[in-house]
Formats: sequence, structure tokens, C-alpha cells
Amino acid sequence: MKEIKSINLREKFQIFNEKWTPKNIAACNGQLVKIAKVSGEFIWHSHAEEDELFLVIKGHLIIELEGKKEIHLQEGEMTVIPKGTEHKPRTEESECWIMMIEPDSTRNTGQHLNDFSKPDLEWI
Amino acid sequence: MKEIKSINLREKFQIFNEKWTPKNIAACNGQLVKIAKVSGEFIWHSHAEEDELFLVIKGHLIIELEGKKEIHLQEGEMTVIPKGTEHKPRTEESECWIMMIEPDSTRNTGQHLNDFSKPDLEWI
Repeated sequence: MKEIKSINLREKFQIFNEKWTPKNIAACNGQLVKIAKVSGEFIWHSHAEEDELFLVIKGHLIIELEGKKEIHLQEGEMTVIPKGTEHKPRTEESECWIMMIEPDSTRNTGQHLNDFSKPDLEWI
Repeated sequence: MKEIKSINLREKFQIFNEKWTPKNIAACNGQLVKIAKVSGEFIWHSHAEEDELFLVIKGHLIIELEGKKEIHLQEGEMTVIPKGTEHKPRTEESECWIMMIEPDSTRNTGQHLNDFSKPDLEWI
């Protein structure tokens, strides 16, 4: 059986500095808990079959939504982007720290495969 | 389609005061995101088929584990209790705020049905 351990979110964020490169930190019922440092603009994309939960740990995340008003998430705020929803995360600050929950199968760039795609996420 | 909105965790905790009574705040890929205020001791229980993620939002949570060292979670720390693991959450402070992620089907008291059981969780 897997070890049961305490995971300190802020300590995990100290381990890496790459932007838009999610790291796996836990698994739960077929979902992965991922963390990422983000800065600037990501790309428009959607996940056909997967909802995506975003929780801001530090900073301020903006998620643009196709045909809807963008949402702003401050530290301690979260949202769920339903499957099939075109969205584009961005920041207006130098750096934002986010936690995400989504299935193992979720590609960070959704339907697109490009330089932003990170197919094999590192466990930290 | 469901509204996409920002959910402020600390604001949600202001809405209720009952202890050991999880409230649903979001759904994501068949999982529910729940929050609860806890104080004192819960009961020993396990969930045969469901992992359970705990993230401490405020305070200090202790989770006793059968045959293992208990784990201590401070604010910003999380753990996943694998399915089938007997565990007993408790606090040594007046109150602790936790976020949990688990399937809709998860009963808070696991295999036990008693006064601690909350079968129909409120959405807030």
C-alpha cells in the first residue's frame, strides 16, 4: 500500500520553477492533484471529457472563457471548468501558483499538441 | 450548462457552524469537493472503495491511522487516505477547517451508520 504522508503545498512549490509545467503531487480516485507555477498567457483549449478544477494557492489567476465573462481567482479561490469549455488561463502578475485536479488522462493543452504540451508530468 | 463561478473557500466557511457536517461546494469528474468544520474527535471508520483527500484550510488536523503513526496536517497541508484504511480524524484545537475530495457516494462515517452520519449533504 502507498505510504500515507503529509504534503505541504508551499514546500512543493519550492522544488521547481518552470512555468505552465504541472507536477503531480497526489492521486485520489483516478484523479491527479497537480500543481503549477504560471505566468503570462496560456493558449485557448478545452478538454472534451474532463472537468478541470483550479485552486489558487498564491497570486491571482484569470481564466478567459469563450462567450462568457472571464473569471478572476485570488488566493483561496477555486473554480471548475466543465468538460468541453474553451478556456485560456492567464496572469497579470509575475507569477501565480495553482493546484489542479483532473484525470490522469488530461493533457494540459486539451485538444492541441504543441510546445505548451507536457505529456509526461513529473511526480514531486 | 452549469454556471462557471469563483468559489471563495473562506467565505464558504462563514456560512455554517456545525461540526463534522460536510457541505458540498463543487463537483468535478464524479468527485465532490466538500468543506467541513471539525473539532474534537471523530470515529474510527474506513471507506471500502473510495480514497479521501483532506486539505487543511485553517487550523491543525490529526488523522489517526490503524497500525501506523498518526499524521499531522497544518494549514496548507494535505493527504490522501487510501480506500480501505481505518482512520480517525481529530483536532486538539477548538476548530479546524478542512476541504475534502471524494466521490458523491462516500458516507462520512464509512461503514458505520450512526449519529455522526450525514447522508444528504447540503450544497452551499
